[in-house]
Amino acid sequence: MDVTAVRWASATAADGVVERGFELAGVPGVAWLPERAAAPVPLVLLGHGGSGHKRAPRQLRLGRWFAGTAGIAAAAIDGPYHGDRGGGRPGVAAYQGRIAAAGIERVVDRMVGDWQATRAALTALDAVDADRVGYLGLSMGTRFGLPFVAAAGDLLRCAVLGKFGLRHPDELPAGMDMAPRLAGDAGRVRVPVLFHVQWDDELFGRAGQFELFDRLGSPDKQLIAFPGGHATAGEAAIAAWCDFLVRHLTAERSAAEVRS
Amino acid sequence: MDVTAVRWASATAADGVVERGFELAGVPGVAWLPERAAAPVPLVLLGHGGSGHKRAPRQLRLGRWFAGTAGIAAAAIDGPYHGDRGGGRPGVAAYQGRIAAAGIERVVDRMVGDWQATRAALTALDAVDADRVGYLGLSMGTRFGLPFVAAAGDLLRCAVLGKFGLRHPDELPAGMDMAPRLAGDAGRVRVPVLFHVQWDDELFGRAGQFELFDRLGSPDKQLIAFPGGHATAGEAAIAAWCDFLVRHLTAERSAAEVRS
Repeated sequence: MDVTAVRWASATAADGVVERGFELAGVPGVAWLPERAAAPVPLVLLGHGGSGHKRAPRQLRLGRWFAGTAGIAAAAIDGPYHGDRGGGRPGVAAYQGRIAAAGIERVVDRMVGDWQATRAALTALDAVDADRVGYLGLSMGTRFGLPFVAAAGDLLRCAVLGKFGLRHPDELPAGMDMAPRLAGDAGRVRVPVLFHVQWDDELFGRAGQFELFDRLGSPDKQLIAFPGGHATAGEAAIAAWCDFLVRHLTAERSAAEVRS
Repeated sequence: MDVTAVRWASATAADGVVERGFELAGVPGVAWLPERAAAPVPLVLLGHGGSGHKRAPRQLRLGRWFAGTAGIAAAAIDGPYHGDRGGGRPGVAAYQGRIAAAGIERVVDRMVGDWQATRAALTALDAVDADRVGYLGLSMGTRFGLPFVAAAGDLLRCAVLGKFGLRHPDELPAGMDMAPRLAGDAGRVRVPVLFHVQWDDELFGRAGQFELFDRLGSPDKQLIAFPGGHATAGEAAIAAWCDFLVRHLTAERSAAEVRS
């Protein structure tokens, strides 16, 4: 990967966070960096959900929080047929139809490549510590993120995944079925994983999500579940994601880490 | 409850923690208090598991960590037929037989009373803030703790429960069956709950634990699961309990709490 291929947009800075768009071989992204840092900082890669995009409110909030409060860089890219990749904010049927038409395996492989290129480009920055990179992506962010996490091996430190399972919902086109691929990829994941389940998920049922959690090869994995349907993401859940990433990416121990 | 009935043993201090045994109407306990605090501190009540006791290694570690690192007081009491209540470190069959013989409902009611008295006595101390009290107890600590949490209402702020379910294990005497009582008590719990499940629990199966989680009346509840059998409690799990309690009991927000 030729990291000189990154084209950076001009930066804006507010509240201690430098925010900067980029384009990387046709993949549009945005990065959030601490305005001041004494040493290279960790990095969190943020995969958005279906119908979202790199600057969706959740991504903006997380990116700015990581850079501004946690002292951790963050980056998001548009998913296939989303955002500036010809999709805008597509309806579910629209992007799923395009993915199914292109072939889910091919779309997954391209997105894995996009994430690999993004990781390489961001960790090439002097400000970023290539040894401390994590991934956060639920739902569609797990659909495309779990294969990336599996492929990345020890280039990543940890991942927050979930809201996805090994049983294909009836509502999705058959061409979107990821179960066989994900079952294999899950077994190759070895880094610590926080797996998020919405207890009343109407799209991906509990049983299939539990099967995916069971398949994860990580010796250190945990499942966390909250009441509510697929789209719910409460404050406690977001705090759990952030706690988990901060704990694994910073040398500073969590306030609540108990020493024997 | 006449709190003057508390008989305090002499205190020892180490690493910023004052540790002091007490006896309260026949109930032996131990309290851990920050050696120095500018204002009244929150309190965590620690219920031990089966065959444990108030000074079991887990209790000591948690009590000392809360008081020494988190600036939160903690207290533990011996459970029925455990520790200094005529049990020592009883085998499972031994204490279960005594509980079943005494009648599980009666034993539960007595233990609820013991916890209520302990809460009253500890919060009567000038050093403790009666408005910020939490409970932590898994397995047998949930068997007796959940009815206490239900009865305490808003005298408690939050609770960590789990490793227990609504399906009575075949291995336990029929006289130990708590399911009908717990199902009702769970519905009365309204405070935030972190419910811990061991994914491969060989004693309390997942289905019965999920049923108990479903019954909890708390609008703010979360389930957290870790691989391993009933007795497992890894560092990530212990950190999750502590994070949850610190978050709910201290005004200071968690490092990872995201602001919109």
